Amino acid sequence: MLTINSARFLKLMGAQAKIGATPDGGLSRPALSAADCEIRDWFQEQVMQHGLRYVIDGAGNQSAILESSHADAKTLLIGSHLDSVPNGGRFDGALGVIAALEVALTLKDAVHDLPVHLEVINFTDEEGTLAGLLGSSAMTGQLTEAALQHPRGGREAFEAGCARVGITPETMLAAQRDPDTLAGYIEVHIEQGTRLEDAGINIGVVNSVVGIRSLWLTFEGEAAHAGTMPMDKRKDAYWGAADFALQARDAIMADFHPGVVNFGDLTLAPRAFNIVPDKAKLAVEFRHGDAAQLDAMEQTLLELAQSTAEKLGLGLAITRMHDIDPAPMAPDFIAAVETACERLGLSHTQLLSFAGHDAQALAQVTKSVMYFVPSVAGISHNPREYTRDEDCIHAANVMLQTVLAVCEDAI
Amino acid sequence: MLTINSARFLKLMGAQAKIGATPDGGLSRPALSAADCEIRDWFQEQVMQHGLRYVIDGAGNQSAILESSHADAKTLLIGSHLDSVPNGGRFDGALGVIAALEVALTLKDAVHDLPVHLEVINFTDEEGTLAGLLGSSAMTGQLTEAALQHPRGGREAFEAGCARVGITPETMLAAQRDPDTLAGYIEVHIEQGTRLEDAGINIGVVNSVVGIRSLWLTFEGEAAHAGTMPMDKRKDAYWGAADFALQARDAIMADFHPGVVNFGDLTLAPRAFNIVPDKAKLAVEFRHGDAAQLDAMEQTLLELAQSTAEKLGLGLAITRMHDIDPAPMAPDFIAAVETACERLGLSHTQLLSFAGHDAQALAQVTKSVMYFVPSVAGISHNPREYTRDEDCIHAANVMLQTVLAVCEDAI
Repeated sequence: MLTINSARFLKLMGAQAKIGATPDGGLSRPALSAADCEIRDWFQEQVMQHGLRYVIDGAGNQSAILESSHADAKTLLIGSHLDSVPNGGRFDGALGVIAALEVALTLKDAVHDLPVHLEVINFTDEEGTLAGLLGSSAMTGQLTEAALQHPRGGREAFEAGCARVGITPETMLAAQRDPDTLAGYIEVHIEQGTRLEDAGINIGVVNSVVGIRSLWLTFEGEAAHAGTMPMDKRKDAYWGAADFALQARDAIMADFHPGVVNFGDLTLAPRAFNIVPDKAKLAVEFRHGDAAQLDAMEQTLLELAQSTAEKLGLGLAITRMHDIDPAPMAPDFIAAVETACERLGLSHTQLLSFAGHDAQALAQVTKSVMYFVPSVAGISHNPREYTRDEDCIHAANVMLQTVLAVCEDAI
Repeated sequence: MLTINSARFLKLMGAQAKIGATPDGGLSRPALSAADCEIRDWFQEQVMQHGLRYVIDGAGNQSAILESSHADAKTLLIGSHLDSVPNGGRFDGALGVIAALEVALTLKDAVHDLPVHLEVINFTDEEGTLAGLLGSSAMTGQLTEAALQHPRGGREAFEAGCARVGITPETMLAAQRDPDTLAGYIEVHIEQGTRLEDAGINIGVVNSVVGIRSLWLTFEGEAAHAGTMPMDKRKDAYWGAADFALQARDAIMADFHPGVVNFGDLTLAPRAFNIVPDKAKLAVEFRHGDAAQLDAMEQTLLELAQSTAEKLGLGLAITRMHDIDPAPMAPDFIAAVETACERLGLSHTQLLSFAGHDAQALAQVTKSVMYFVPSVAGISHNPREYTRDEDCIHAANVMLQTVLAVCEDAI
């Protein structure tokens, strides 16, 4: 049975981790930052040095292509992303791109002519530093002008990032590909949780990826002198943001398990020790695997925000950000991953993905699947994120066997 | 009876309000900002054009001096501050400086030789943008190296501001004056509350100024993926800052009336929609007129912060900022203000000041008093801050008569 070159693969994993490395063992490569541009240059070099064809599209997605000799071959995409959250870890995204690259190199070395063009892809901004799933949304025609007009990280950072790689909103919107040219998408990722570790299972085959919604909620009060305005007459915007967040946390935990909500940013104005804040702008993100539950969560959150604002005499402004719908994976691709695991003698189970992934965008237009390998202690988006070498090697070998199974069965 | 030149005074009030003006009718002159430097230049011009002596000390305090011919004359300080909070109003501080300037000009025009040197003063950074009561603390020897090492607005803003006016921590610490050369300090300010307006009284004579303490409380959790980390396993630093603030608000309102607490700033890290925050740095400021109660408030706040952190599995770091002790005013100066009111036929009452003021620092080393005029609806630290022309004119005439009464009675 064909297997990947483990030594070459681990060397590539080590090399990518040095770019944007932080002193605490993590890395920081927010999309289109200087560090992300450095890993992008490195990826292009690796692709070209190893004799694959290098392509970049208008959304900044980078690809390495192993071409098929078959007439009318479609393209099977495999990959993930090389960007990270600020001060993140070395495996989130990078494992999927490097495993896919190793699979393409193994097949090239073996002179294995597939019935599909195999395209290893590094999607732009999976983490949503600028706009959630930017690259994969653009490729699949789901990127909206609205998302580009109100980028999550602010207009200035967005424009500076785009300028670094020579892309624009226009080139992004033009990066959509014809779904008829695609054979499917396969992605491997670390679990970022403890379900596999707790159960002692090698591979988690994702059956659906959660939907994600994000909002800015701005509570609006009245600025006042922090000494002379009596406590019971204040219209303190921070009281609103604090009170809402605690109620929202409790309501989601009580009524929407396993749904989650996060408040990742809060900015007060005017930001002085001695002024009662008149604005509190809170970042709210919530996730659920079921579309109807996601709607119900949104309604609960907005009702709580409104009732809290009314109780405290505050105004409330709501800005909706990019939404991502829950995405079921393709049953025959799920079966192909399970076949690959069985060929390799690896244990497997099906599970729901709580993290958003590029597979979510791809699933809207082509057969897609993703699978997880264990993360030690479930730590992720953190410098201490870690996946053992043997699990990384399983990740790449399962990708190789899944590509072969898909080619045998489904095309 | 000698009275001020109302037309000249209101013209000066109008002129100062144009500098750093904001479109909504307020002004923004944070200490040593470009706008504050502009008002400082304007003040120097006015002083010199009107034939008073201009002096600036190592803390950036600006003075206009009307000299006495008396041998061994001491200096009677009158004034306030021209800096403002970000997006503040046109009266807070400025009224006190301009009224004092008008009083000096009136006495100069009248060729009135006082038994004291009359020094009109604009104190640096009363609002504490960089360090609380910076200028008056420096002059009275209460400025600490610690306050300068951890300026409230951060090191960078502090150094940039100092460079604009050519002062340094060394020159500030050297700006202390010999209390034996001082005859006292008199300040007029807007009330920034509604006690005078509600009671229909012209002048509030302050009998004591509240003490103010400020702290940074940093709740420390664990960064995690906002999708995959189950809600019940999170160590979310924002939950700590929110939970603490609501408990602290309720405890201070229930047990420490009329004491107040404010949370004027909060910064989360790493600041992303999709990461559970691992740091929440909260600005806490609290005030009370009684020193023992202020101690008890501090103990309550720190115990609540500690118990909240423990409950949520968070760490807690405490950074103490500049403290200001409660400051009783001088009884014979209080009597002088009351005499002035009676000469002018103005109603008056004694009250506690909930705002910190330069008089608080001066009271530690010399006889000091301050008095308030009404603020419409009590609005302050807000562009809608407003005091009627007639109340501004009362402010200046009471200053003139108080200076004369102090010179008759007390020197």
